[in-house]
Amino acid sequence: MKAEIISVGTEIILGNILNTNTNYLSKKLWEIGIDVLYHTSIKDDPKLLKEVLNIGLERSDLLIFTGGLGPTSDDMTKEIVCKTLGIEMELNKRAEEDIKEYFNRLNKPMTYTNIKQAYLPKGAKHLINEIGTAPGVYIEYGSRRIVLLPGPPKEMALMFNKYVVPLIKQDYIIKVKTINTIGIGESTLETVLADLIGNQNPTVATYAKEGLVDIKIVAKGHNTERVNFLLDEMVGKISSRISEFIYSYEDEKIEEVIVNKLRRKKIKIAICESCTGGLITSKLTRVPGASEVLERGIVTYSNISKIEEVGVKRSTLERYGAVSKEVALEMARGLYDKTNVDIAVSTTGIAGPTGGSELKPVGLVFMSIVTKDNSYVIKSIFNGDRESIQNRASIKVFDELRKIL
Amino acid sequence: MKAEIISVGTEIILGNILNTNTNYLSKKLWEIGIDVLYHTSIKDDPKLLKEVLNIGLERSDLLIFTGGLGPTSDDMTKEIVCKTLGIEMELNKRAEEDIKEYFNRLNKPMTYTNIKQAYLPKGAKHLINEIGTAPGVYIEYGSRRIVLLPGPPKEMALMFNKYVVPLIKQDYIIKVKTINTIGIGESTLETVLADLIGNQNPTVATYAKEGLVDIKIVAKGHNTERVNFLLDEMVGKISSRISEFIYSYEDEKIEEVIVNKLRRKKIKIAICESCTGGLITSKLTRVPGASEVLERGIVTYSNISKIEEVGVKRSTLERYGAVSKEVALEMARGLYDKTNVDIAVSTTGIAGPTGGSELKPVGLVFMSIVTKDNSYVIKSIFNGDRESIQNRASIKVFDELRKIL
Repeated sequence: MKAEIISVGTEIILGNILNTNTNYLSKKLWEIGIDVLYHTSIKDDPKLLKEVLNIGLERSDLLIFTGGLGPTSDDMTKEIVCKTLGIEMELNKRAEEDIKEYFNRLNKPMTYTNIKQAYLPKGAKHLINEIGTAPGVYIEYGSRRIVLLPGPPKEMALMFNKYVVPLIKQDYIIKVKTINTIGIGESTLETVLADLIGNQNPTVATYAKEGLVDIKIVAKGHNTERVNFLLDEMVGKISSRISEFIYSYEDEKIEEVIVNKLRRKKIKIAICESCTGGLITSKLTRVPGASEVLERGIVTYSNISKIEEVGVKRSTLERYGAVSKEVALEMARGLYDKTNVDIAVSTTGIAGPTGGSELKPVGLVFMSIVTKDNSYVIKSIFNGDRESIQNRASIKVFDELRKIL
Repeated sequence: MKAEIISVGTEIILGNILNTNTNYLSKKLWEIGIDVLYHTSIKDDPKLLKEVLNIGLERSDLLIFTGGLGPTSDDMTKEIVCKTLGIEMELNKRAEEDIKEYFNRLNKPMTYTNIKQAYLPKGAKHLINEIGTAPGVYIEYGSRRIVLLPGPPKEMALMFNKYVVPLIKQDYIIKVKTINTIGIGESTLETVLADLIGNQNPTVATYAKEGLVDIKIVAKGHNTERVNFLLDEMVGKISSRISEFIYSYEDEKIEEVIVNKLRRKKIKIAICESCTGGLITSKLTRVPGASEVLERGIVTYSNISKIEEVGVKRSTLERYGAVSKEVALEMARGLYDKTNVDIAVSTTGIAGPTGGSELKPVGLVFMSIVTKDNSYVIKSIFNGDRESIQNRASIKVFDELRKIL
């Protein structure tokens, strides 16, 4: 099946937002064995919508539209698709209920423009939107399939995975395994796995995100046993070469792995952050269940808060400066002593863009971890802008925690 | 001039990399007065290349291709474009020299495949690549202009700005103004501004992100005075209708505005977060200069930490529960009393996915702000998943802070 992804949105065409939906859908379609041939983007414009729909119908079997299902007058994807295909629209009671329910929950009045969203093409399948107001649509039109999904990435992804995938899945088996690594660079990884990356089935590819690299293995076949065998064999090969850098075989975020390990081992943790400014705590608390393991977090941004909150000595601050291994250690030690946790973590560094010196450049970060029996201090120098330095430091902390756990 | 951006690259079509080139070019083209109508992406494939070139020639005046100019056999953009247009290629001496020179500088041997890169379409303009091996091409073909640029973003951007912009720049001026709003929904905003959104010059459009809506105004004209006048007039109209929701006329993040206001007024702030788990503190500390105003942040995730850190009474926790206006207020009050800040902020709520009840549903958040003279408690119910609830709560807090400041 040949697929085309069509993004509708003036903000995409003007370059105001990055088209992450297309990227997401491409990956997902490919994983279920569907060949994506074209990405097309246009603004919310009836003439262009009609034009790309007609081109798409000629050359692709599956057209996935994202965007233009909102309540306002410039949202017209559904209307133009129906008009072009000659399909009438009718009020869908279930969709209307959902939208009313949505506004009820928020305790907000529903504007009359939202009712427009409940009109769906006759005979089409209604794709329920559980977290927004725009329902999706699945249309079979001769040999073509047309899917309309809302633009907000979370709504789009949820609806695509829950409702669209079962409708379009191919009859041969494709399985994907993602191995998550930490602490190894992408080029090193590619060198170590060079022969495997050249493989045909399963294929192996690497995807780098700040400080983390994912390895995606995709196996195809006509029966489950064969596909599982191919996958397991490849996982084994990769694992034997780089096992110490693998933190998950389940495609998880590093903070999820940390929170779940802590939960399983019933270990309590507390975090004292300076340069990372709450990012480590915030990442941990994004994981459901974090409240079982995270006892507290403290962002000791001022010197006085380092003294008051975690008992850093004034003399240590004066002698070594706030960005020093001594202060990092006293922060973690003080936090450990003050709370009833098993692990205390601290960070102090220079996130920039200013505040660096020759001796203590922007990007210098000290991290400390204190447990009942041990205490560690790690020094790193990270590259990039303020956000990047904060992010890389948080990932480094998670990597160190992983090793300890 | 109507433009189309065509990205050629298997890695884009597979979703392995985000298509940032198209995003970059869209913004730049639009700023120099060129209307981008289409984004198209395909893999490196001769049939598809020919197809999209032919479609592009029919509907667009300017086609900008990126990618597929490399030395390997799957790089074929230049070859297929020339073949389709019936243009011969010839060895360009300058391009050949450049490539040789490039390898000399790197002290690497030049592979024979690189010579292929020095063959350019006859009569076309050679666009010099100062940081890579693939030269760019500018072709005038009847009334159409076709630009071929390499895929690596840095090479593409440098060559586009230095060589392509002067060749395609329009002789009128275009200026953009972004107004950032908070606390008003996109559909309400569109109703209030409906007549202005229908305007031709300047155009007005809204862009919603979780809890925030940006208004973008674009004015065109033949001289600066006229364009500025149009822009100022429209800003005045919008401002007169919704001034209380506008937090910036400079396209800033809300947390930047808060940090900068606090800096200007020399106001110190401290944050005590429960359900937002450090997100508010983390967002503030992403802003350079946050250390001047943020005294500390405390994530009191456990009940005991609420008692120990900010003096919440055990009886209040028992009587009203951790998620209550009483606890929110005691958190902010306790933080205010303990620190030497001018404003103390707290949040407590249920971020989900579990932990909700009929009386206290997932999404319920209490926020409190305590200053020298006043104390506020705000109750909200937010929609969405855990991350979304945390994010919307953080934006609500920034909105309340903005009103107080």
